[in-house]
Amino acid sequence: MIILGIDPGYAKLGYSVVEVCRSKYLLKVCGAIETHSSMVFPLRLEKIYNSINLILEEFKPNAASVETIYFQNNQKTAIKVAHARGVIILALQRYGVKIFEYTPLQVKIALTGYGKATKRQIILMTQRLLRLNSPPDPDDAADAVAVAVCHANAPRISL
Amino acid sequence: MIILGIDPGYAKLGYSVVEVCRSKYLLKVCGAIETHSSMVFPLRLEKIYNSINLILEEFKPNAASVETIYFQNNQKTAIKVAHARGVIILALQRYGVKIFEYTPLQVKIALTGYGKATKRQIILMTQRLLRLNSPPDPDDAADAVAVAVCHANAPRISL
Repeated sequence: MIILGIDPGYAKLGYSVVEVCRSKYLLKVCGAIETHSSMVFPLRLEKIYNSINLILEEFKPNAASVETIYFQNNQKTAIKVAHARGVIILALQRYGVKIFEYTPLQVKIALTGYGKATKRQIILMTQRLLRLNSPPDPDDAADAVAVAVCHANAPRISL
Repeated sequence: MIILGIDPGYAKLGYSVVEVCRSKYLLKVCGAIETHSSMVFPLRLEKIYNSINLILEEFKPNAASVETIYFQNNQKTAIKVAHARGVIILALQRYGVKIFEYTPLQVKIALTGYGKATKRQIILMTQRLLRLNSPPDPDDAADAVAVAVCHANAPRISL
């Protein structure tokens, strides 16, 4: 099974493609899609949409695992991230891949068994599980790896 | 000039197409795109995206006027509306129409000159300005007419 993991954002969006074979994970790719603040917002959304489509076409995932939006104090930021997340979900839906959603808490529990795990602990766990020489970089990419692994673990853990 | 007005939503989204010729307004169409709660959310987003594209292809507007999101107490609803609004903005951007945004306050002032105008006052003003026999129906369509008229008025009022 090939899982596309996504940590939504509009300035920086993490993505990962993880292949799961028996209980082993193989990281095919991970990174971040960035849109610069000098771009008008509709153009940023279009860049995100096009980038997601390119990843879908190249890696043909069987499932997409997308983190839900973390409710922040900054409602304006959350609203902007939600615009981007809508565009991401649309790309996945139009491509025809099955879409799954996990909260940040579910991701933490799936990765470490502990709901109060720090960002650092999550990143180190993705490095260990995928037997990488160094942690995924940037952090957004590590988050995207974590949400892909969370989906791979979903049938075996009680979320 | 042909203006597409949009009052964003995910369960019910208002749209209008208003032709402006000298300071006269002609309503070409208005209505609501509805998505049922029985549909999974990605499918609702796809229906909204496809519906906006159909309107764009049929009426070929020169400008799109989209209301900003009203910050509600219910953050969950605002987040869902923002997903839909992202998809709407994407459709407009991909079609290549110029996109303008107005806050609910700007729309009220543009229509009535009064920032505390009631919903009823706004609806009646759209009926009067467009010389309609009855108010646009449903209310979401009236809101979409209002935001289109707001854009038509934008160069002449101080928003």
